[in-house]
Amino acid sequence: MTRNIEIDLISDTSTKPSAEMLAAMVKAEVGDEQRYEDPTVLALGERVADLLGMEAALFLPSGTMCNQIAYLVHCRPGDEIIAAANAHVFGSEGAGASALAGAQFRTIETPDGIFAASDVEAAIRAPRHRSPRSRVVSVEQTANRGGGSVWPTTALAEVAAAAHARGLAAHMDGARLPNAAIASGQSAAEHTRGMDSAWIDLSKGLGCPVGGVLAGSKDFIAEAWFWKHRLGGAMRQAGFLAAAGLYALDHNYERLAEDHDNARLFGEIARAAGIPVFPERIATNILFLDVAGYALDAGEIAARLAGHGVRLGVETPTRMRVVTHLDVSREQVQRAAGHLVRIVDDQTPLRVAR
Amino acid sequence: MTRNIEIDLISDTSTKPSAEMLAAMVKAEVGDEQRYEDPTVLALGERVADLLGMEAALFLPSGTMCNQIAYLVHCRPGDEIIAAANAHVFGSEGAGASALAGAQFRTIETPDGIFAASDVEAAIRAPRHRSPRSRVVSVEQTANRGGGSVWPTTALAEVAAAAHARGLAAHMDGARLPNAAIASGQSAAEHTRGMDSAWIDLSKGLGCPVGGVLAGSKDFIAEAWFWKHRLGGAMRQAGFLAAAGLYALDHNYERLAEDHDNARLFGEIARAAGIPVFPERIATNILFLDVAGYALDAGEIAARLAGHGVRLGVETPTRMRVVTHLDVSREQVQRAAGHLVRIVDDQTPLRVAR
Amino acid sequence: MTRNIEIDLISDTSTKPSAEMLAAMVKAEVGDEQRYEDPTVLALGERVADLLGMEAALFLPSGTMCNQIAYLVHCRPGDEIIAAANAHVFGSEGAGASALAGAQFRTIETPDGIFAASDVEAAIRAPRHRSPRSRVVSVEQTANRGGGSVWPTTALAEVAAAAHARGLAAHMDGARLPNAAIASGQSAAEHTRGMDSAWIDLSKGLGCPVGGVLAGSKDFIAEAWFWKHRLGGAMRQAGFLAAAGLYALDHNYERLAEDHDNARLFGEIARAAGIPVFPERIATNILFLDVAGYALDAGEIAARLAGHGVRLGVETPTRMRVVTHLDVSREQVQRAAGHLVRIVDDQTPLRVAR
Amino acid sequence: MTRNIEIDLISDTSTKPSAEMLAAMVKAEVGDEQRYEDPTVLALGERVADLLGMEAALFLPSGTMCNQIAYLVHCRPGDEIIAAANAHVFGSEGAGASALAGAQFRTIETPDGIFAASDVEAAIRAPRHRSPRSRVVSVEQTANRGGGSVWPTTALAEVAAAAHARGLAAHMDGARLPNAAIASGQSAAEHTRGMDSAWIDLSKGLGCPVGGVLAGSKDFIAEAWFWKHRLGGAMRQAGFLAAAGLYALDHNYERLAEDHDNARLFGEIARAAGIPVFPERIATNILFLDVAGYALDAGEIAARLAGHGVRLGVETPTRMRVVTHLDVSREQVQRAAGHLVRIVDDQTPLRVAR
Repeated sequence: MTRNIEIDLISDTSTKPSAEMLAAMVKAEVGDEQRYEDPTVLALGERVADLLGMEAALFLPSGTMCNQIAYLVHCRPGDEIIAAANAHVFGSEGAGASALAGAQFRTIETPDGIFAASDVEAAIRAPRHRSPRSRVVSVEQTANRGGGSVWPTTALAEVAAAAHARGLAAHMDGARLPNAAIASGQSAAEHTRGMDSAWIDLSKGLGCPVGGVLAGSKDFIAEAWFWKHRLGGAMRQAGFLAAAGLYALDHNYERLAEDHDNARLFGEIARAAGIPVFPERIATNILFLDVAGYALDAGEIAARLAGHGVRLGVETPTRMRVVTHLDVSREQVQRAAGHLVRIVDDQTPLRVAR
Repeated sequence: MTRNIEIDLISDTSTKPSAEMLAAMVKAEVGDEQRYEDPTVLALGERVADLLGMEAALFLPSGTMCNQIAYLVHCRPGDEIIAAANAHVFGSEGAGASALAGAQFRTIETPDGIFAASDVEAAIRAPRHRSPRSRVVSVEQTANRGGGSVWPTTALAEVAAAAHARGLAAHMDGARLPNAAIASGQSAAEHTRGMDSAWIDLSKGLGCPVGGVLAGSKDFIAEAWFWKHRLGGAMRQAGFLAAAGLYALDHNYERLAEDHDNARLFGEIARAAGIPVFPERIATNILFLDVAGYALDAGEIAARLAGHGVRLGVETPTRMRVVTHLDVSREQVQRAAGHLVRIVDDQTPLRVAR
Repeated sequence: MTRNIEIDLISDTSTKPSAEMLAAMVKAEVGDEQRYEDPTVLALGERVADLLGMEAALFLPSGTMCNQIAYLVHCRPGDEIIAAANAHVFGSEGAGASALAGAQFRTIETPDGIFAASDVEAAIRAPRHRSPRSRVVSVEQTANRGGGSVWPTTALAEVAAAAHARGLAAHMDGARLPNAAIASGQSAAEHTRGMDSAWIDLSKGLGCPVGGVLAGSKDFIAEAWFWKHRLGGAMRQAGFLAAAGLYALDHNYERLAEDHDNARLFGEIARAAGIPVFPERIATNILFLDVAGYALDAGEIAARLAGHGVRLGVETPTRMRVVTHLDVSREQVQRAAGHLVRIVDDQTPLRVAR
Repeated sequence: MTRNIEIDLISDTSTKPSAEMLAAMVKAEVGDEQRYEDPTVLALGERVADLLGMEAALFLPSGTMCNQIAYLVHCRPGDEIIAAANAHVFGSEGAGASALAGAQFRTIETPDGIFAASDVEAAIRAPRHRSPRSRVVSVEQTANRGGGSVWPTTALAEVAAAAHARGLAAHMDGARLPNAAIASGQSAAEHTRGMDSAWIDLSKGLGCPVGGVLAGSKDFIAEAWFWKHRLGGAMRQAGFLAAAGLYALDHNYERLAEDHDNARLFGEIARAAGIPVFPERIATNILFLDVAGYALDAGEIAARLAGHGVRLGVETPTRMRVVTHLDVSREQVQRAAGHLVRIVDDQTPLRVAR
């Protein structure tokens, strides 16, 4: 299916390891991570703990497991998690927080995925026997469905403070925290300062094949280990995967700025051709296109793009997603946007008012 | 605490059995309901199944258990339940659906607690491995936090049809379904026509001390029995409680119209005194007062009312709830509203703009 | 089905309230127990807390809910509960501890339902990431499937000490703890001395229609309240049921000795006729008959007894259970045993070796 | 910790990829497995489905996740799983079946981990509202804690038939099924014939770094995909890991016979020196040593062995485990056993009766 796709903008999860990353993987010294004997896994844990300003960190096979284990450690059944209604944890993790941790989401409507301390305060329930127990505030940095928007560090600190003031924990789904750090010019640790737990994904913009790293206090990680086993996330010679992570932190972190430039370039070309683009100001590597004004729907546009070796994401019949990453060059982004514009222009006579 | 309360409008759950109801309870023929040997429990099940137009019904110690068991039967962990954001099941049952059934709520914002088939269609998720699985649409009749509003039977039928069209079940929290039936002039069965499960509460307007009755298909009730045991809702000589239910269906059902009249009376008196009342049109036995415009907050007003032997509910510092029921007469309602108006009038000089 | 049964020895759960108990129920002062406004429920809680030497207690609709809530408070998902393999909590509560609390049972084989501190020590797991976390030791007093056997208070203390030494909680399923107290001549509080939680059932030998009362520390009961709501065990004017409990503690407690005498009488008559009886020494109100040596199986014997208005329990094709209680007199027990012996004698010519 | 260990017999999970396996990994064609776009992951799934005679298969990060997902698909909360008391799923997966699937284990005592159809029949519960619902029979091939014992295919077929006759599913934890296949001379598919689900581990004797592959019907695997996401087992370019699996099935499968020979060699040397060895007949690559008869306990013996670069497993103070695998040669096994014998001989004067 992807054989003929040259320019894949469907997600930054589609990145493939470079030759240099593969070389680093093969050279990794490994051992049984369940016995704490994989030196590369241990090194990655320390590296990410430092990066996020936390005491300890744990390598896991996916970002979803990072979120789920954080909730499992923070919550008891019957607790409530406050999150944006368009958060990945609410819509794209199979209701895992309820299925596994027995926790309920209370969601905040926010187009860009960012909310305020006052939203948190309004969402925390008064303590009553019959009420869910407010327990975690969960933020997503960057906010994927919010258009790759970047939470300001002040907003993060305020939200965390509002949580702590009422005895809740603050958790960050940092799937694209590295993008936020680069875009904001503030370190990842400045972003996670008030958080009780946070993680970064290795398999998105950092270009690794597999894995996420969950960080928190020593006690938090000690508990997380039990859930790593229970959920089946305890692997063996995982150092090969961890080595990719270490390589990526050295080589693919700063360069995320290019992806952001490329996303803005795509957005400019699309806008210049009259295609509505969200968000207004493209902050990182994600943008959405509103194709409601065209005769072709999103699926049909995607099919025509595929004929040119380009893949965009189809969110809804009127909405497409573009995600830039290290496997797509500036020139390719330019070419992909050009194909889109031509497809859209061709159908102009068919354009209908809706 | 309630010793000095003569007029208790905090909730219709505060009703106490009348002497006649107690007499019916004491005369009940009973047995071990776990062995299907309590004839009164069996009779109540048949009576409620008939009332709701369902095949079978099950006596349970509370309405909360009715809702929870319905979700436990309809759902598997990771499923999603669509409900109003102000529904009792979402805010007032301890996140039980997540804690017990492992299901997640997707909520619809709706001030009166009523939503449309189009809301349901928008809330049902496309089937994807990573998405929660939409499984139940849950309605509340009447909508308590919606101001005792009554879902029209057409709206219920449309919502149920939208659910069924996509393979979801339709469930009715019928805590105050008898009020809706009386207010609408349509039988309870007309309200539950499209529902896969529904229940009525005995301990609210019907005036019984304990219990709810959950109805559905024979298969549904057969499964529900397992959960009745597992949750600890299987009692022994429960016929005493069921006898109260049978008495109430005979004697306290039609008279709910008086409670509705009384609620309207209270609303009129309050409005005449300038107190904003919600909902615009009081449909059943519940109304809310907005006291934001007064110097005294809701708690202070409640305290002064208590001095006159009157109790209203304090929802928030600016919002009070009034619920009429069979233990409060028209004259008492009039008196209670009069006290409220006098308290509010006394503080007029203190009224501040907010 | 039970209409023609005059002597019902199937279980002490089949007791029905006496006229005096009903009178006490009807006179009860009641209120909404969810608002702590039911004085009779509150009085029963204090009474049982005192009886069991605990700080606080909570009225619940069944003994099963008492057990389940205790596990829900003591455990987090992934914990392990140590109990006898023939315990009610393991075999007769629908795997509720796993379904609700996410806890796993580790069982100890013991014919009489009693185990030793050394069994507990052997069952507690070494702390390891991949191991279940040993969290609760659960005892059943008396041990129903163990033949109504009575745990000596020394054994209880040792088992509790072994649990505490390793950081586990000790819980007592006290469904028939009053029987144990009467049989041992030691107060209920002496039995629960080392326990972190314990409960008594009102609807067994005490003769009430509905309910159990769970006791523990104030903190434990505070947590238990959340689960009472979540599981649907929070009722309204439950004082009617609580009044039965208070009456029973006054009038039906000491008389349990008669039930024990009657059980021994039944056992003697059966043994004199050559029917093997278990346990060797009948300690309380339960005994088992081994009918493997007869041509008729247990179901057939039960059917013939029913023709005489007598009901015994059929455990397996070769095993019957007899439970005495306050609704069966010494004379009735004698008569029932006589019917059994005659049925067995009649078939003597058919007796076969197995 | 393992730096100075030359001969590591603690587990076959400690195997490290060979240069050839690494070369195969690096050359793998990969893609996003969540979009079914990783050709190597897909190829491995087909390969294992064929190997086990199943319709479909799913790559997962660990064997524990294979077991847990199988239970999650087969069970609903409140179900019961029948397994050996010494099974990995009961003792070494963090009570995951209860924590995640809400299922309870009913265990069968069996020293070699093998049980009979009659054991299954005795363990299946009569259907009753209050009983756990018997739902899965779970076997472990080979039985690790049973001494690497091999279930005969006839026993497997009988146990599966007993399960199916009562409506239960049959599941095989095939962590070391390849060893069983090689040892028995019967294909893996002959072993899984009656199973509804089964899996093999890649990271044990097959020598891969990470992963297991779960197989079953198409419907079963379709459901399993939802749980792969929910638990966080959905990775991205997992083809690198899958490539190791494909390599291992080609190159490391038949050679398991050598590991079995080496285990027997170790056992013979130990026995010749008077050390009691379990099992009597070493069938695969696992054996246990009973060191109760020596003055040094298992931990002390292990410490002395470590001084010679040898590592054995310490199960209890009197029990050690030896596991052979492809990273340990015949000569090394001989040497390791020699060191053990010398350590034991040295302490002979200290030998005490226990």
